[in-house]
Amino acid sequence: MTYCVGVLVDKGVVLASDSRTNAGVDNVSVFCKMELFEGAPDRWLGAVCSGHLGITQAVLARIAADAAIGSEPNWRSAGGMREVAGMFGRALRQARDEQSHLMSSGVDTAANFILGGQMPGEPPRLFLVYAQGNFIEAQDGTRFFQIGEAKYGKPMLDRVVEAGMGLGELSKCVLLSYDATLRSNLSVGPPIDLAAYAGWSYAPARRWRFVEGDSYFESLRARWGVSLREAFAGLPPPSV
Amino acid sequence: MTYCVGVLVDKGVVLASDSRTNAGVDNVSVFCKMELFEGAPDRWLGAVCSGHLGITQAVLARIAADAAIGSEPNWRSAGGMREVAGMFGRALRQARDEQSHLMSSGVDTAANFILGGQMPGEPPRLFLVYAQGNFIEAQDGTRFFQIGEAKYGKPMLDRVVEAGMGLGELSKCVLLSYDATLRSNLSVGPPIDLAAYAGWSYAPARRWRFVEGDSYFESLRARWGVSLREAFAGLPPPSV
Repeated sequence: MTYCVGVLVDKGVVLASDSRTNAGVDNVSVFCKMELFEGAPDRWLGAVCSGHLGITQAVLARIAADAAIGSEPNWRSAGGMREVAGMFGRALRQARDEQSHLMSSGVDTAANFILGGQMPGEPPRLFLVYAQGNFIEAQDGTRFFQIGEAKYGKPMLDRVVEAGMGLGELSKCVLLSYDATLRSNLSVGPPIDLAAYAGWSYAPARRWRFVEGDSYFESLRARWGVSLREAFAGLPPPSV
Repeated sequence: MTYCVGVLVDKGVVLASDSRTNAGVDNVSVFCKMELFEGAPDRWLGAVCSGHLGITQAVLARIAADAAIGSEPNWRSAGGMREVAGMFGRALRQARDEQSHLMSSGVDTAANFILGGQMPGEPPRLFLVYAQGNFIEAQDGTRFFQIGEAKYGKPMLDRVVEAGMGLGELSKCVLLSYDATLRSNLSVGPPIDLAAYAGWSYAPARRWRFVEGDSYFESLRARWGVSLREAFAGLPPPSV
C-alpha cells in the first residue's frame, strides 16, 4: 500500500509520500513516490502517487518527456493547474490502456495522483487525479487530499489543518499523520518524503527525506507519544 | 457502517459500539449493536456486532432463546468461552444460510461479532467471530479487536492499551478512539454504548450510553482536542 498526502494552505502546498511498495507481502521494496517538477522561473509542480508502480512511473516519465522535447501541452507551457491535471489524467488513461492486457491477468492497474502546484497568474492549487483520469480540486473546506492508507492519519489532519498555518507547522502536522499510520499499518513504510512549496516563490520546494531512525522524526514521534499519554492521563474517566 | 471495539485487560473487558445503521446514505437509523447476557451468578457475556442487521438480530435472538428454553448448548450452561464463540459462529452460519436468497439479490449478509465474557473456571476472554463463523481469541500482544470502520480509531488503541490498565482508564481510551472515528467518518454515529465488566465479579457490567451532546463525552472530546493542540504547538517543526 501507500500513504500520500497533499495539503493546500494560504502560504503554499505541502506534499508527502511514503516509500513502501509491494507485490505480495513477501516482495517489499522502496520506491520514492514523489516527483517535483522544478526549475522553471514562473511555475512549480509536485506530484505524489499511489497504485500500480509501472503505471505511475510511465505517467511521470511521459509528463517529464513532453516538457523535455517541447511536445504540447506540457507542464512548462501550461496555462494553469487545471490543464496540468488534465495532462496527468490523459497520461494515466493512456498508460492504463496500453497495459490493459494486465487486467485479464487480474492485475489492478489503478493509480492516483495528488498534484500541487502554481502556474503563472494563479495562486497555488491542489488536485486529486483519479484512476479513471478525472480529477477534483481542493478548496476552502477541503484543504487536503489523501491517497492509499488514508484513514489512520485522517483524524490528525481533520483536527489541525487550517488555511492560515505556516508551512513548518503544516509539515509537522503531516508528519504526525504519518506517525499514526506507520504505527498502525505495516504496509506503509519509510523513508517519508516531504516537500513544502512556498507560494509565489517559484523556487524549489524545501524537501526532506525522513529515513528510518531519522533523529528529528524519531524525536518528534517520541515527544508526541509522551505528550499524548500525559494529555490522556489528565482527563477524567467516565463516572461510575 | 459501524465501529465496535472489544478490549481485554487483566482487570476485565470493555466493549463498545456505535448505533448508526444505514441502507443507503438516505436511510439512516439508530440501532443498539451491543447485547449483554447477564444475571447468571457464575458467568458474564457481552457481544457487539457489525454487518447485516437482520442477521445480527437473528443470531442474538437465537442465543437468547436457546438459553431461555434450555436448548443445549447455550450460554448459561456453556463450559467455556470457546464453546460460546462456537455457538455464535454456528448461529451466524445458520442465519446466513437461511437468508442465502438475499445473496442472489446482491445483498451482503456478512456480519461479525466481538464477544467478551467470563465462564466458570476461566479468566475473562475476548473473541472475534468472523462472517464465516470461524473465530479467533485475543491474547497478550493483541488485546483488542475492532470491527467496522476500524482504522481511524486504531492509533489511539495501539498507543494506549496495556494489560495493566484500569477499566475506567480503558473506557476513556475507547471513547477517545470513538472521538477520532466520529470526527473523520460520518457513517459512525452516536449514541455510543460502552460496557465495562470487572473480571471475577460475575456482576452486571457498568454500562453507559453516550448520546449526542452527552456532557461528559463532549467535555472529554473538547478537552482532548485542546490538549492535542497544545501538545502539537509545543513540538518543533522540521528544520529548514
